[in-house]
Amino acid sequence: MTIPQLLTQPATRNTDYASPFLRACHRLPTDITPVWFMRQAGRYMPEYRAIREKYSLIEICQHPEIAAEVTMQPVRALGVDAAILFADILLPVIPLGLGLEFAKGEGPVIASSVRTLEDVRAMKPFDAESDLGYVMDAIRILRNELPHNIPLIGFCGAPFTVASYIIEGGSSREFLKTKTMMYSAPEVWHALMEKLSNVLTDYLVAQIRAGAQAVQVFDSWVGALSPQDYETFVLPYSQKVLQAAKAEGVPVIHFGTNTTTLLPLMKRAGGDVLGLDWRIPLDDGWKLLGDDVAVQGNLDPIVLFAPVPEIKKRVHDILNRANGKPGHIFNLGHGILQNTPVDNVKAVVDMVHEYQGNK
Amino acid sequence: MTIPQLLTQPATRNTDYASPFLRACHRLPTDITPVWFMRQAGRYMPEYRAIREKYSLIEICQHPEIAAEVTMQPVRALGVDAAILFADILLPVIPLGLGLEFAKGEGPVIASSVRTLEDVRAMKPFDAESDLGYVMDAIRILRNELPHNIPLIGFCGAPFTVASYIIEGGSSREFLKTKTMMYSAPEVWHALMEKLSNVLTDYLVAQIRAGAQAVQVFDSWVGALSPQDYETFVLPYSQKVLQAAKAEGVPVIHFGTNTTTLLPLMKRAGGDVLGLDWRIPLDDGWKLLGDDVAVQGNLDPIVLFAPVPEIKKRVHDILNRANGKPGHIFNLGHGILQNTPVDNVKAVVDMVHEYQGNK
Repeated sequence: MTIPQLLTQPATRNTDYASPFLRACHRLPTDITPVWFMRQAGRYMPEYRAIREKYSLIEICQHPEIAAEVTMQPVRALGVDAAILFADILLPVIPLGLGLEFAKGEGPVIASSVRTLEDVRAMKPFDAESDLGYVMDAIRILRNELPHNIPLIGFCGAPFTVASYIIEGGSSREFLKTKTMMYSAPEVWHALMEKLSNVLTDYLVAQIRAGAQAVQVFDSWVGALSPQDYETFVLPYSQKVLQAAKAEGVPVIHFGTNTTTLLPLMKRAGGDVLGLDWRIPLDDGWKLLGDDVAVQGNLDPIVLFAPVPEIKKRVHDILNRANGKPGHIFNLGHGILQNTPVDNVKAVVDMVHEYQGNK
Repeated sequence: MTIPQLLTQPATRNTDYASPFLRACHRLPTDITPVWFMRQAGRYMPEYRAIREKYSLIEICQHPEIAAEVTMQPVRALGVDAAILFADILLPVIPLGLGLEFAKGEGPVIASSVRTLEDVRAMKPFDAESDLGYVMDAIRILRNELPHNIPLIGFCGAPFTVASYIIEGGSSREFLKTKTMMYSAPEVWHALMEKLSNVLTDYLVAQIRAGAQAVQVFDSWVGALSPQDYETFVLPYSQKVLQAAKAEGVPVIHFGTNTTTLLPLMKRAGGDVLGLDWRIPLDDGWKLLGDDVAVQGNLDPIVLFAPVPEIKKRVHDILNRANGKPGHIFNLGHGILQNTPVDNVKAVVDMVHEYQGNK
């Protein structure tokens, strides 16, 4: 469906085009700038910590009622304009047979890291509805629970970012093993990316069919690459995932950090909305991308630890740079950090909604 | 002294302007593209590991004869066009009274991290010659030992990067405490940066007066900042250090990573040569900076783990992008990593020196 059709058609997906978030994804004018936060559900919220005392992160994800509850927490507490499903980009790793654990304070640990063609071939077949049905169940629950005007964002990791965890066996700073696979064993790299892009496409499409009204593809660590490497080793696979989601008729957000030199290529890979981090001023980033995409961003998450007047100055700077142009979704440049003061997050939502300048 | 003066004057500093490295710093034509590597002395070399079995990193630095020997190792083994003093950017932290240790596999640990104005005021007075005399002694030894045509590069950390370690108490991924100080306690931040820029200026000038023929200022982690924050919180302090070094009459290299959006401001802060990492194609970076500076870079250090033909393709790509324009110093985009195959490093030196294309 085209955008005008979506706006005149009956709401087959129960999509309320009064949603400023969805309107902004389509670069339509909005009364307020919509705002949501990456990792808006999480440890910084006392409600979440209360649940985490009883369940591990993976257990929360695997219990649709609890995942739905955690997803709802920031919607109730903050007044954001969109909900994002509570899940983890590495969930598909479990049915792929690689083993996933979250070690205390150390982030994800993948037991069977993938390094060879045999490792790639040994990855189990994947079917989103049967393997990660709990995610789709959480989406179905949420679509019943969420207010009509608060759309639900589904998401997955981009093939590069998921591959980096699978190859390194967890988080990485240098991506030594990941890049070494690209440079020294490109046939293994391409086989892995082929597999992952199919898995992630299936997963993301299943989320949309279960009711996600927009999706975000997280290529959080892709900024470690040169533009040339991005084009050769990443773009075709991200494109597959992004285009498949797009074909389902929902807006697609394409997110990364450290991506200044990658932005034109990321745009080519796809996305109605491109994520910008704080390293590039919002207006410069939007100019680089062009007027035919929306942008999301770009407050440094650490600003949320500052006093409110300092936060306000920086929120207003971003809004001034957007200059009221349709297609700006306010967000951070990366996820909310642990220990972020909840009151400051709430204050940002209000600042964005109350902003009057430059419109 | 101006460049033409330097070229006609007697070599008061024993500076051989037959050095392609020094000529490139001044954007003068060279027969070959000069090449050296950040962290060219280090764990990837068996000769270095042999010494490290007997001495800690700090002990090596504190024994001028050993530091000089380690500095010489890559000059002998690789055929690079410049030597860089073996030292650590955090050495000044020791006389400042903050305590420095290198925990096994964890990088630097600073015992007394600086968080308040009292902490800044409690930092001891600093005098480079008396406090870090061993560094200057190593420089004096090296100037006697080094071949006439191999200049010695001195260096220090830039105020931001040193401050980040001092505030965080070690390495960091997010720079939460560092940025929070900027945003929430700017008076503490500015007092710390004032102190550090004086310390680092004194230290760098002492290195030049001891005989360093060029210096590099490492702002390795500055790419975590937005351009606006760089301009307000970093630029004036980096500028002080860079300008003081420049006034001593040697070429100054200004280095950072992740700096695409900061490059014009880093140029304004100073440096005859600006470092580029692999995230920006060399020609694009040079265009952004302008023809009135030299550039250094920009191979991804992980390429050194690839097979030689793949390395060659990428080395040639960089040289093709430089297109024979005077003022390119070949280097990595960041330091050599542990476990890098020495033969591949040596192969890159030869590839750069043997390159004939596009000249």
